[in-house]
Amino acid sequence: MQEDDILKVFGQRIKQLRLAKGWSQEKLAEKTGFHRTYIGMVERGERNISLKNIQILAVSFDINMQDLFYDQNRPSI
Amino acid sequence: MQEDDILKVFGQRIKQLRLAKGWSQEKLAEKTGFHRTYIGMVERGERNISLKNIQILAVSFDINMQDLFYDQNRPSI
Repeated sequence: MQEDDILKVFGQRIKQLRLAKGWSQEKLAEKTGFHRTYIGMVERGERNISLKNIQILAVSFDINMQDLFYDQNRPSI
Repeated sequence: MQEDDILKVFGQRIKQLRLAKGWSQEKLAEKTGFHRTYIGMVERGERNISLKNIQILAVSFDINMQDLFYDQNRPSI
């Protein structure tokens, strides 16, 4: 995997989890306290998100960090 | 878990993985291209490390992101 791809792969995973909850970006923004435009940038892989913010997303989705990085369609990320 | 604790828990996991390889902080610095003092700060939970740098650590340890966050003594992180 190219080094930069991790941001895109992570962003797709966040979008996948958000849609699985039936949440809009606005709803996830409200849950996390992040701005909606930041959510959009993370989902598009445009932000090199920090560990603290990754955890805030995990808490908002009510999953642990390990599951946040788990995608059954892409088990090797 | 307190929000700030994620940095400490992650740092302990990095130290655990490093010691399991029998590597010094200098060796991990060499593998990752990070400065040795940065490695020390990450291990002590003093840096809010970014996703790209987390991936560089995973690649250096030759494990995937999911396993990087997996600790059999603390499965809920």
